[in-house]
Amino acid sequence: MVDIESLGDWRRTHYSDMITPSLRGTEVTIFGWIQDLRDLGNIIFVTLRDKEGLVQITATSKNTDAETFAKIKSLGRQSTVGIKGLIAERSEAPKGVELIPKEVRILNLAVPPLPLDPTGRVPAEIDVRLDARVLDLRRPEPQTIFRIRHEVLAGIRKFLSEKGYLEIHTPRIIAAGAEGGATLFTVEYFDEKAYLAQSPELYKEELTSVFEKVFEIGIFFRAEESHTRRHLNEFISVDVEEAFVEARDVMVLQEELLVSILNRLTTRCQEQLEVLQVKLPNVHLPLVRYSYSEVIDQLKQNDFKVEWGEDLSTPAYRALGDLHKEVFYFITEWPTKVRPFYIKPKAERPEICDAFDFMYEWIEITSGGSRVDSKQQLTKRLEDQGLNPESFDFHLSTYDYGMPPHAGWGMGLDRFVMALLRRENIRDVVLFPRDRLRLKP
Amino acid sequence: MVDIESLGDWRRTHYSDMITPSLRGTEVTIFGWIQDLRDLGNIIFVTLRDKEGLVQITATSKNTDAETFAKIKSLGRQSTVGIKGLIAERSEAPKGVELIPKEVRILNLAVPPLPLDPTGRVPAEIDVRLDARVLDLRRPEPQTIFRIRHEVLAGIRKFLSEKGYLEIHTPRIIAAGAEGGATLFTVEYFDEKAYLAQSPELYKEELTSVFEKVFEIGIFFRAEESHTRRHLNEFISVDVEEAFVEARDVMVLQEELLVSILNRLTTRCQEQLEVLQVKLPNVHLPLVRYSYSEVIDQLKQNDFKVEWGEDLSTPAYRALGDLHKEVFYFITEWPTKVRPFYIKPKAERPEICDAFDFMYEWIEITSGGSRVDSKQQLTKRLEDQGLNPESFDFHLSTYDYGMPPHAGWGMGLDRFVMALLRRENIRDVVLFPRDRLRLKP
Repeated sequence: MVDIESLGDWRRTHYSDMITPSLRGTEVTIFGWIQDLRDLGNIIFVTLRDKEGLVQITATSKNTDAETFAKIKSLGRQSTVGIKGLIAERSEAPKGVELIPKEVRILNLAVPPLPLDPTGRVPAEIDVRLDARVLDLRRPEPQTIFRIRHEVLAGIRKFLSEKGYLEIHTPRIIAAGAEGGATLFTVEYFDEKAYLAQSPELYKEELTSVFEKVFEIGIFFRAEESHTRRHLNEFISVDVEEAFVEARDVMVLQEELLVSILNRLTTRCQEQLEVLQVKLPNVHLPLVRYSYSEVIDQLKQNDFKVEWGEDLSTPAYRALGDLHKEVFYFITEWPTKVRPFYIKPKAERPEICDAFDFMYEWIEITSGGSRVDSKQQLTKRLEDQGLNPESFDFHLSTYDYGMPPHAGWGMGLDRFVMALLRRENIRDVVLFPRDRLRLKP
Repeated sequence: MVDIESLGDWRRTHYSDMITPSLRGTEVTIFGWIQDLRDLGNIIFVTLRDKEGLVQITATSKNTDAETFAKIKSLGRQSTVGIKGLIAERSEAPKGVELIPKEVRILNLAVPPLPLDPTGRVPAEIDVRLDARVLDLRRPEPQTIFRIRHEVLAGIRKFLSEKGYLEIHTPRIIAAGAEGGATLFTVEYFDEKAYLAQSPELYKEELTSVFEKVFEIGIFFRAEESHTRRHLNEFISVDVEEAFVEARDVMVLQEELLVSILNRLTTRCQEQLEVLQVKLPNVHLPLVRYSYSEVIDQLKQNDFKVEWGEDLSTPAYRALGDLHKEVFYFITEWPTKVRPFYIKPKAERPEICDAFDFMYEWIEITSGGSRVDSKQQLTKRLEDQGLNPESFDFHLSTYDYGMPPHAGWGMGLDRFVMALLRRENIRDVVLFPRDRLRLKP
């Protein structure tokens, strides 16, 4: 029986990546998990993982006292330990350095058998991985993905803040949905029935009349029935909205954001991108803009059955991904009737609206457009789409306070990261994904 | 009848704060809202508000063509306009400068009577303000509060990122609540019953076994029945969790974060703080740490009826706020039974646990502590608090993968901003607050 010890007054002095030959002879305290252990009798090689990487611990019955040596011998994989020891050079070890342990504290034991191998040597199915997600995330690939995701988020906020957009937080529990009731989750709000917001759409539009340029990055909800590799029921949306501009202006913003993030990752995440074997795409601005009509023609020319006016189906999108050589592009000028009520129809040709999608191959990353700014037109558009204007009374009333012309977009952060890192399944870039079949862990 | 015009190819060239005497004679295009209009017959003074401030437009029947002059005459307060004109010096005008309008586009009309006066000259009750929140937010005070709030958020993320904490997103729709069922909102999740997360507590704890140092900033939910000036049902939580440390370490982190934000606001928001007439508190580290037992003694010495072991009531907190001269301080070493199951009891005296609150006068801003890291102890603590360990099976299973000792805290962002800006009501620092009685707008 191994006793669990407490942290006591031990505190980390070094991470694994700081253990270098130049520190030879230095006493350090490190913490981490047993990644691997080779017990050769009188010598034990331990690989310890911490958040920065791996370090080799070499215990010999000669260099390490009997009690500590026995303790190390008892360690199972993924158990949590603290180790005090001396740094020594060792040419055979990774990075040419190892730690000679002087004192070990066993902080917790992993209980075998583990449901999957967190070194990544034995591949596991996605559902096994997601069931034991915390263990799965210890593999080098997810570790790397979430460090890059952190950089993407920081880069987006920096880009938008520097351009003068104000960060906002809009409600998640709402009385009416921005896009109708089909994909809303219901919440019991005390004695009332309420819904979970699908987007900050109407709130961010209203706030352009106050702050002019706003953004929100947050979790939103969609009661999506379809179980695909690019849909989740909880997702992070990056929303931007701006007064006194049109769709074409915020499309330029989207392009510039893309380039800004690609540059940031190139500068700051080269090592991580190599772990993932990802080469970032070369992007030249302006990106190609295909109109919806052009896209329909392209599909028809390639014998794809589709009619002008239809929304694009998944097979149609997949065909477009094959037809277009660009990694990123826009589709613009959609039929008004397949777009939400808040998108502005073209004055000169109202069956077309000023909407756009920002595409990664065959997957939509961002949807945006110029918004309706007249109360009368908005009321009409609600009615045309079978929605009850009375449910939107609070929103409509804000149009009486002087609504500016405005435009904006909502980008799926998870899809954006998926595109940048060329992952096949959105679940690989989300810590604890939620879908039709998965509410746990 | 005034016609609404479209933005067309007009784009802003200058914000109000860029209109300076040095630009005399320059033609500019500005956009904004009619804040005020004084019509003296042959001369009209308009104050235009945009996101950066106010600018004076002076139209005379001599300088401005008849059509434009008539258009300006027709403008109602809060209507949205674009103005092309020439900058001129005028010593009587604010900042000694005005704009002589050449062309005006009326982009939208406000419909009088407005439910409140957005210049702030006529005070309105909180419920009137919240019902017409978008108009209310145009007052200088809220404008300023949300610009400072943006800086606070940016500062928190910068501070934590630079210290090596990884930004995470944990689920909002969950199968079991971290702190029992009393204050959970219920969601219909397809055919299952689910809940809205009150905090990222269990997920962030689990993730210390992967990333060691994590933070999340996001909206969480509490089905709080009480209607007070410091409670909301949706709130932004700033959560930090770290492996291989104890409560005392993350208390230092909290202190350093406070100082970092105070310094950031001092450097970057001096002008805004003056608008709010706020003087930031002087803070010297370390902050005072009162143990719960000391606090109980203080209350008793001041004839306050309270017994050791009780949770502190609102009157008790208010009394403490009066007793303590410090603006910010900690209360530590709480009775185990009044704290959640995941807080670690002291090994040598298990009726006390290693929990702390970070206080602003009488209001709790942050709760944190060392966490239980033994599966056996956690199971026991769940049972002691009347919770069913089976509901926490996914969480408990992660303790078999090697859980590190860990500690962390959750800070209410809204309360923190309220404290920094010395606002009396939390609703003043939240764009669209949600409470027991308010689900709209």
